Amino acid sequence: MGKVFIVGAGPGDPELITVKGLRLIERADAILYDRLVPKALLSRAKPQAVLIYVGKKPGGEGPSQSEINEMLYDLALRHDVVVRLHGGDPLVFGRGFEECEYLASRGISCEFVPGVTSGLAAPAKYYIPPVARGTASSVALVTGREDPSKGKRQVDFKKLATAVDTIVIYMGASSAREIAMELMEGGLPPDTPVAVVESAFFDEERFYTTTLGGLGAVRNPAVIVVGKTVERGLRLREALCRL
Amino acid sequence: MGKVFIVGAGPGDPELITVKGLRLIERADAILYDRLVPKALLSRAKPQAVLIYVGKKPGGEGPSQSEINEMLYDLALRHDVVVRLHGGDPLVFGRGFEECEYLASRGISCEFVPGVTSGLAAPAKYYIPPVARGTASSVALVTGREDPSKGKRQVDFKKLATAVDTIVIYMGASSAREIAMELMEGGLPPDTPVAVVESAFFDEERFYTTTLGGLGAVRNPAVIVVGKTVERGLRLREALCRL
Repeated sequence: MGKVFIVGAGPGDPELITVKGLRLIERADAILYDRLVPKALLSRAKPQAVLIYVGKKPGGEGPSQSEINEMLYDLALRHDVVVRLHGGDPLVFGRGFEECEYLASRGISCEFVPGVTSGLAAPAKYYIPPVARGTASSVALVTGREDPSKGKRQVDFKKLATAVDTIVIYMGASSAREIAMELMEGGLPPDTPVAVVESAFFDEERFYTTTLGGLGAVRNPAVIVVGKTVERGLRLREALCRL
Repeated sequence: MGKVFIVGAGPGDPELITVKGLRLIERADAILYDRLVPKALLSRAKPQAVLIYVGKKPGGEGPSQSEINEMLYDLALRHDVVVRLHGGDPLVFGRGFEECEYLASRGISCEFVPGVTSGLAAPAKYYIPPVARGTASSVALVTGREDPSKGKRQVDFKKLATAVDTIVIYMGASSAREIAMELMEGGLPPDTPVAVVESAFFDEERFYTTTLGGLGAVRNPAVIVVGKTVERGLRLREALCRL
């Protein structure tokens, strides 16, 4: 019986995976990978390794989570080293935790190998820090998704608005406008700076800044950063561009 | 004139640096490094590379931030590739952002290379996720430090208490008890689960769980996780231990 390594591929730049993550890709007998995993990483697998794409499109096509769990279980019965490769970090709005819970319940051993999460790395590429001395000493990483069972957003943005200095929203593209409204209702001024990184580290990457009041349609996948550090990051970026 | 790469060394396991971070260490002409940078990484530097320790002890001994800024500037004048190596991620409660601001103001180019932050990776080693479907959909990364100019904590823990599902506290060892009190005053029940990882990934590493009401003295450096995901992580860990 094999072991499943639940690995973060990092934010999209193939060089931003960890050394351990890459070593496991090179050793793996089987790899199950997501949509946001850089293809260059898969070329590092052994020629005989089984590579299986299990990514979902935003619409939801692709194998269900329970199908993925089953696949992982079956692969672990037949192979020594199985890698489940997630974009970013497997525990930051990935399903890595549930996969490990399922595998453990079926007697399969697993281990998490963290990755750099896109919510921090995508803004950092544009010199926007999550926190910065004098400007921000707390950052919340949150999902913009709704809870399908409740029909409302999982996160109470009104409450969150003034509880932390910086808010990083994952999977908030399709409801960016509503989230901005909730944050303003919660007390954030409409001129609060916002940075958006769409498709970070991929060819279609797009970066722009706006304000909470001006935030419009955002293209999926995106990281949305709300808070004063955005402004400070922009100033640094401008200073560097002038060099 | 050289370029300064402000690099995250990851949480302490030498294999949890990014591939890019390691490549830059191997190319660097000069490396300035912190206390929590694993020594094994420094052995990957070129034999002729200049290695300078700029770590501070908790008491505050060691070069000041402005001395470090000056050193980085001087090194960038004399070398092509200068690496400033931070434990964890350089922008998550490191001083990487301020260093880059200083360098840019003096005409030196710099770039951030993210690292896996210890606040996420240390709990993950013990199967504790920052968020998990059905249990937590938001996590705040915060500092436990006081603002020296204000003589009070930088983060309003009372307000934060119920605004997010999980709270990860960096640099909170010396005031863990007071922070726990503030979180309880803010509405978190005394039986809220807490996990502590002291000296993650180093020889002295220590992991334990408690509750907000039971949280006592914590040894520096530590990551403190507050929230229901701690309980869910413990259950997974026990299931895996039984295998």
